[in-house]
Amino acid sequence: MRIVEVSRPVTPLKVGAVTGPTERCVPEEEPVAIVCNGTTVAVMMATPADLEDFAVGFVLSERIVSHRDEIRRLEIVIHDAGIEARLWIVEERARAMIGRRRVMAGPTGCGLCGIESLEQVDRILPAVTHKIGLSSADIACALARLREMQTLNRATRAAHAAALWQKESGVVMVREDVGRHNALDKLIGAMARQETGTGALLLTSRVSIELVQKAAFANLPVIIAISVPTLAAIRNASRAEITLIAIARDDGFEIFTRPERIRCGFGS
Amino acid sequence: MRIVEVSRPVTPLKVGAVTGPTERCVPEEEPVAIVCNGTTVAVMMATPADLEDFAVGFVLSERIVSHRDEIRRLEIVIHDAGIEARLWIVEERARAMIGRRRVMAGPTGCGLCGIESLEQVDRILPAVTHKIGLSSADIACALARLREMQTLNRATRAAHAAALWQKESGVVMVREDVGRHNALDKLIGAMARQETGTGALLLTSRVSIELVQKAAFANLPVIIAISVPTLAAIRNASRAEITLIAIARDDGFEIFTRPERIRCGFGS
Repeated sequence: MRIVEVSRPVTPLKVGAVTGPTERCVPEEEPVAIVCNGTTVAVMMATPADLEDFAVGFVLSERIVSHRDEIRRLEIVIHDAGIEARLWIVEERARAMIGRRRVMAGPTGCGLCGIESLEQVDRILPAVTHKIGLSSADIACALARLREMQTLNRATRAAHAAALWQKESGVVMVREDVGRHNALDKLIGAMARQETGTGALLLTSRVSIELVQKAAFANLPVIIAISVPTLAAIRNASRAEITLIAIARDDGFEIFTRPERIRCGFGS
Repeated sequence: MRIVEVSRPVTPLKVGAVTGPTERCVPEEEPVAIVCNGTTVAVMMATPADLEDFAVGFVLSERIVSHRDEIRRLEIVIHDAGIEARLWIVEERARAMIGRRRVMAGPTGCGLCGIESLEQVDRILPAVTHKIGLSSADIACALARLREMQTLNRATRAAHAAALWQKESGVVMVREDVGRHNALDKLIGAMARQETGTGALLLTSRVSIELVQKAAFANLPVIIAISVPTLAAIRNASRAEITLIAIARDDGFEIFTRPERIRCGFGS
């Protein structure tokens, strides 16, 4: 069986004030097939770490299952061409999944027309009403701790992170991936597998709509992102009653929705 | 008909040394359905600008068509739920596309097994043998010009860009999107629609495998990226005979594959 690597040193030719070979660590990507009851649901390029978490988070985020108890078994199989995450889910969920696939492909191969497909994107989000309070100091501490815990990013400068912050313990869990969506799916899967309960979600990336949708389905009431949100992300956070904080830096942050969960006054 | 916005000012609450409402411009995202001959091929979240380019680039990158002449007609339709890019492609290509969809869904809804799906990812890339020479000074100039041309990113600090550089004219074309894959598809579509011919590809993002695959199918012999590549991207660039330059900054860059196209000596 081959060895799966998460990152590896390479020696590019550095051109600049001094020109010559240099060493740098770059992240690996592998195709990961998510296979439920023998059917491939998706193949995604992902950083090959925490793949059990990734598989569980993916089927939760995609609403293939609604609770981890609906996953009977999970197996990671390493092939030459990539990695297969084999899940066995309860029969009822598998039937619903296959039904959806049939509609997508259509009995005559005609598929959905554009309007129907567009209307499926606008998912009805649950309201995340969980009460949680954070101070400005909590946010500053969380960001500092997150940086320390991003081991893959420290080695490669090329990985996004998603992390869970909880009132009592601070940053309790970090997951990394070259893709920001994958990093969040890994975190959501890890939270479900370890039954952590909810808290605030830290993201190193920009916040686009899918990240807010995933957070809403994972019952995360607060998102704190280092980078900028999109308008669609702001609208969806507002609808799901999520507090959306972005452009979170050492010296401050911006609150886009539901500020009542945050105690401001920086440095307090 | 509603107005489609690319970005809009919002007023988050800024918390920091001074706390109070602030104004910032954030990018919009809209679901865009790519519909070929009445069948939805994909729905993607995208920045709603240059959508004709996006649609053409997407069907080229996904190998649904192999040349823009195989697209008979293109229409952008704005719905309340999102945007539909309706393409009419030649009958032969449409039949092949529907055949692929049937295999993906499977006659009994069973789909492909994981191994088959994984093997489909490793696409055979064409070798890009186009001869093109760049100096260190060309690269530094191109990066400076690219920054000037990133209008959406200047307004929002949240958009990636893909640009085409040519020997005679420098940076001739830039396309922007919140998603880096979309920015490249827009550029590839614009190149095909305007028959620009080839050149060097500039990317503001990290380089993952799909970006290299798209560049190979678009016959782009050089990739110059501001951020880091993945191992899979380096392997694929090497296979496609593409010169891959990354971590390209004002004071230098790193060459990962095929250095023979670059005349080094910085400042020369």
